[in-house]
Amino acid sequence: MPIGVMPMRSLLLRSSYIEISNILRGRAAALPRQCYRPLHAPRYFHARACPQQEPPKELPTFLEAYKRAIDFPPATHDFETFFVQAEPNTEVVLHGYLGQRSDLSKKLSFVRLTDPTLQHSLQVVAFAKNNAFEQLKALNANSPVAVRGTVQKKKAKASESESADKPAEDPWELALEEIHALNDFPKDTIMTPETVFPPEQRYLQLRSDVELREALRFRARAHNLCKEELEKQSPPFVEIETPLLFKSTPEGAREFIVPTRREGLAYALPQSPQQYKQILMASGLPRYYQFARCFRDEDLRADRQPEFTQLDMEMSFATGDDVMRTIEGVIRRLWSTLMKDPAPEGPFRRVPYREVMAKYGSDKPDTRYGMEIIRLDQLLPVDLIGKISDLEDPIVEAFKVEGNENDPAETHKFITQFLDSPAGAPFNNNPDGGPGVFIYNGKQPLCGLQPFGFQAAEHVEELLDPDHGDLIILQARPRGPFSGGSTPIGDLRRALHASSVSTGFKPAPTGFDFLWVVDFPLFSPFSDSEPGQGGAAGISSTHHPFTAPKTPADVDLLLTDPTQAIADHYDLVVNGVELGGGSRRIHDAAVQEFIFRDILKMPAERLDDFSHLLDALRSGCPPHAGLALGFDRLVAVMLGKESVRDVIAFPKTGRGGDDAMVGAPSPMTEQALETYHLKLRK
Amino acid sequence: MPIGVMPMRSLLLRSSYIEISNILRGRAAALPRQCYRPLHAPRYFHARACPQQEPPKELPTFLEAYKRAIDFPPATHDFETFFVQAEPNTEVVLHGYLGQRSDLSKKLSFVRLTDPTLQHSLQVVAFAKNNAFEQLKALNANSPVAVRGTVQKKKAKASESESADKPAEDPWELALEEIHALNDFPKDTIMTPETVFPPEQRYLQLRSDVELREALRFRARAHNLCKEELEKQSPPFVEIETPLLFKSTPEGAREFIVPTRREGLAYALPQSPQQYKQILMASGLPRYYQFARCFRDEDLRADRQPEFTQLDMEMSFATGDDVMRTIEGVIRRLWSTLMKDPAPEGPFRRVPYREVMAKYGSDKPDTRYGMEIIRLDQLLPVDLIGKISDLEDPIVEAFKVEGNENDPAETHKFITQFLDSPAGAPFNNNPDGGPGVFIYNGKQPLCGLQPFGFQAAEHVEELLDPDHGDLIILQARPRGPFSGGSTPIGDLRRALHASSVSTGFKPAPTGFDFLWVVDFPLFSPFSDSEPGQGGAAGISSTHHPFTAPKTPADVDLLLTDPTQAIADHYDLVVNGVELGGGSRRIHDAAVQEFIFRDILKMPAERLDDFSHLLDALRSGCPPHAGLALGFDRLVAVMLGKESVRDVIAFPKTGRGGDDAMVGAPSPMTEQALETYHLKLRK
Repeated sequence: MPIGVMPMRSLLLRSSYIEISNILRGRAAALPRQCYRPLHAPRYFHARACPQQEPPKELPTFLEAYKRAIDFPPATHDFETFFVQAEPNTEVVLHGYLGQRSDLSKKLSFVRLTDPTLQHSLQVVAFAKNNAFEQLKALNANSPVAVRGTVQKKKAKASESESADKPAEDPWELALEEIHALNDFPKDTIMTPETVFPPEQRYLQLRSDVELREALRFRARAHNLCKEELEKQSPPFVEIETPLLFKSTPEGAREFIVPTRREGLAYALPQSPQQYKQILMASGLPRYYQFARCFRDEDLRADRQPEFTQLDMEMSFATGDDVMRTIEGVIRRLWSTLMKDPAPEGPFRRVPYREVMAKYGSDKPDTRYGMEIIRLDQLLPVDLIGKISDLEDPIVEAFKVEGNENDPAETHKFITQFLDSPAGAPFNNNPDGGPGVFIYNGKQPLCGLQPFGFQAAEHVEELLDPDHGDLIILQARPRGPFSGGSTPIGDLRRALHASSVSTGFKPAPTGFDFLWVVDFPLFSPFSDSEPGQGGAAGISSTHHPFTAPKTPADVDLLLTDPTQAIADHYDLVVNGVELGGGSRRIHDAAVQEFIFRDILKMPAERLDDFSHLLDALRSGCPPHAGLALGFDRLVAVMLGKESVRDVIAFPKTGRGGDDAMVGAPSPMTEQALETYHLKLRK
Repeated sequence: MPIGVMPMRSLLLRSSYIEISNILRGRAAALPRQCYRPLHAPRYFHARACPQQEPPKELPTFLEAYKRAIDFPPATHDFETFFVQAEPNTEVVLHGYLGQRSDLSKKLSFVRLTDPTLQHSLQVVAFAKNNAFEQLKALNANSPVAVRGTVQKKKAKASESESADKPAEDPWELALEEIHALNDFPKDTIMTPETVFPPEQRYLQLRSDVELREALRFRARAHNLCKEELEKQSPPFVEIETPLLFKSTPEGAREFIVPTRREGLAYALPQSPQQYKQILMASGLPRYYQFARCFRDEDLRADRQPEFTQLDMEMSFATGDDVMRTIEGVIRRLWSTLMKDPAPEGPFRRVPYREVMAKYGSDKPDTRYGMEIIRLDQLLPVDLIGKISDLEDPIVEAFKVEGNENDPAETHKFITQFLDSPAGAPFNNNPDGGPGVFIYNGKQPLCGLQPFGFQAAEHVEELLDPDHGDLIILQARPRGPFSGGSTPIGDLRRALHASSVSTGFKPAPTGFDFLWVVDFPLFSPFSDSEPGQGGAAGISSTHHPFTAPKTPADVDLLLTDPTQAIADHYDLVVNGVELGGGSRRIHDAAVQEFIFRDILKMPAERLDDFSHLLDALRSGCPPHAGLALGFDRLVAVMLGKESVRDVIAFPKTGRGGDDAMVGAPSPMTEQALETYHLKLRK
């Protein structure tokens, strides 16, 4: 076994360096600039001399320490190789981080050395026989070092430094010969596996949080599996990069703009590679995919990032069916390779939008815990309806929450606490009426359903099949078709379930239930909250304006009642999370233009923004369909993380899209504004 | 073999649709908006009625055609599978694009069907026995179709439509039963494999140019190989995504800014993930890589893109040596897998900056064609020096171009043509003096070297070993150390060589000669052409301000003469192209801060912009080194392409960074400016 020998040289104590760097170490972002300057400043700093003119006699101690730090010996082994190849009484050099030192006597110390990956460690024994012993004692835990030592069989269990909770990985330990300080971990920073660091110190969070680091490795593995699955198709999907310096087009979300030095002109960052990928389909590249960075300048809603990654794909001569089958393969591959849960079998079921909205009150339902919604309005006595809503002729829906069979009082306590909590407030304050709450109780007249009257109560029992102690919730809404992502009763179902789990009233559901939500309306009433597609029709595309109508009958509806047209649009949903969505696209220029101009009523100048797409479609573009999976979200779901921030190395953390660590966004300088021919409005 | 049958339905002629779309087809960007509107407008367009109120009696023909186009039968086979599984007298449905139809008689036509990947094709025979024959005749070449037909053995060679130059891929042909038009390729667009389309019609270029499409597939394969090579290391490199919405920091190049809705605040797009990857090293993630999109708002110099992709990597506890070895493995893997040329063997040679500048007058030399530069000044007569330069005591360098042994007149013609051409002008106009040109001619006194005098001529002959007909070029430059990327004589060497190849005077060099250029100066005189690092010292970092000095001796020079310090910086060069560069980084906060403040003399507010990096280094960051390969450039070099535009799906083409196809950048709307609290300066 070849063993590199550390070059012999006198290793000075680093104490003077440590002293300076201790002072330098203050958290700079929070402190005024002077803190960067050492208080016990070496002469050099006082003199402020121009080095060329007046060279100082001595090198500042931090430069002396740095000279030693950069001249470190290469490792003879990484730890994994070492554990396999180690032979007693040979000399090795290993790199890594020091653990907490444990001084057994004035002449004997132990310390664990953790390897650069933070995945393996080894015990190092230091005897007071050489300089290294003193050098070790001068170093803080967590500091990076290069260590030369002699391999020896571990003496005894009792001699381990942090033994009890940290089982030794191997029978070897290192007798310290030489230790080379590479940098210094601040003594006053407390870092345990449990420490939660502020977002400004993301590097310390990453350094201390094995789960976070593992999430990033897991994410890379998931990326590779998606890639492999798409590339093994016949014909294979090909990863093609599309531009990020794009053009502002009214697709829906607000786009970030990137001013250029050409006065008044700007790029826009793409909200997705949608248009480029469709143009690729017109270009004879039939199967495209990309891990694409996308940007939306949105008000940061629950756990959204202004930049995010999507697994974006498109296939030509294809329908939504082909896309859904392909993506099911990707999901199955991910689950069968990376997850303990079984991979979903067979095609995922496809549920129309109207059905999920009726049954779950959500277009991305968690379907694992029952509580399905039924319609009751035609059965209910008028005075009961009047009690739960002031609406004229409302729709009344209901669902059941399985309660405590033995003790309806427990059910009562649960629902009361929920409705009295902040989580319950929006439901109590619903202008269409708060929820009507009934506890099914075999010991009460009509089992507690007296307000329903005999006939309706019987119907409710038939429909919901309640048991003693179950909760029955009623909610009214105005009569009308479904639109948007959820209904109040759907939100209530979700909130009640979340509360039932968090309070321990019910166990958390397990497993993964995938479904495709399909048959969305092609157009939805225009929502003011987003910039939209700039049309004047009072409606906007539910998915995006490139989505195709589903059937020839839906094409007919474009002329008679476009709001009734169904889109060939499919969302992949699992456990209440929308993993992604896609659609078949309009591949015909005349139809696309008709949608832009005559349905959405985009003004001429907005329509012009899409001329590149229309031109590409006009060049004999084949039919095509595609999808984008939110990759951050997918990984978070796989790892059971609440937030995408837990699967992103450097997430934006603030509501304003702040990267608190680097301090972005930051003030534009006057020079930058001038470069881009801009000034602030005031 | 399961055979899908195309659903039976009457397929109407699409002629009326074609008529409209022919008119619709004009290039929209270049034409006024009205061109979108069909001239022979169907009634619907005249009426401009709101569809809901006044439904037209008939559906416009383009919607009728679209209804048929979206309802197409799935393919029973892709072509590759078909070629393997085809059985005579079975019915199949295939998707693809029509070729040029060849009408053998009024009752018999042939047409090739090319598959969706444009990689395979098949002959289709149409007899005037069914509707399909007439339908086929109504369709333009290149239109996408679904075809149902009966498989049959190909009759005879003579029956092929475009037979001579296109060998049949297989013994099968298809007897046409039904043809389903999916869209229409414009009749007036001429598309041959040789057609060059303007950048606005990139989709047609991609569609017609098999080499361009292949370049994108090649690029994807190269991407995968780099990935595999890095991921198989021990410990493996892990792909980690870093933010693109970053902060403006004075690293060197001008950054694009991205205004936010928080007044006066902006993100900046990163010129590289440099700071984030160094922070990853401080975070205990020891081996990082990423195919990273980077942005530089530069004046578009020769073949640069404002956005580009780099293969970015970094490793901790490592030196430049480790990085260079790793990258050599990546290059070897690429060459051995994808290239006909042999993979480079052994470690690439490392040549110091001063040596390449002296020998080739370039820091990214093409080392394959000799023409090495030598210094002559101490040997030359004063009056010869005076003839080639007005400089006081210049350095005079020379190189030899092998000429025409048989005919020095040919050499004379070559050099005269070059110097008289626009390419020669900058050299003639060099204020330090134009090149001195000599043709070595055995038939002349002193072989044509009379102006050198006897002694110098002998020296020149010793140093350059010229043959009859060779060219000897002299060039003066001011005395002083090398700085920047090239010297005038280096530029002349390159230009003369390029001209010698393009005029056929010399054969083009072949093969790939990789080298590392190392030992760059740590700092260079400040260049006004770039925004720089904002320092007031008159020097800026040659690579970037995070680059480490190479040896302890170079650390000493920081205080005495920083301009003499050598950097641990290495560029990978092949055939005159810089593929990428990297460095060992400063991993010590005190030293990094010292460089920022005391060497570069950055003002306090610029220094503050780096506080996140200093904080991360201060948290016990291990030593680290890394590199970035320009991935666009690498792929272009592998494919022998002159321009990176040939390996990018949608490159920026204009000098101003235009995406001519989509029309980006585009005017900022007043609304966008208002959203971001901005207005134009005027």
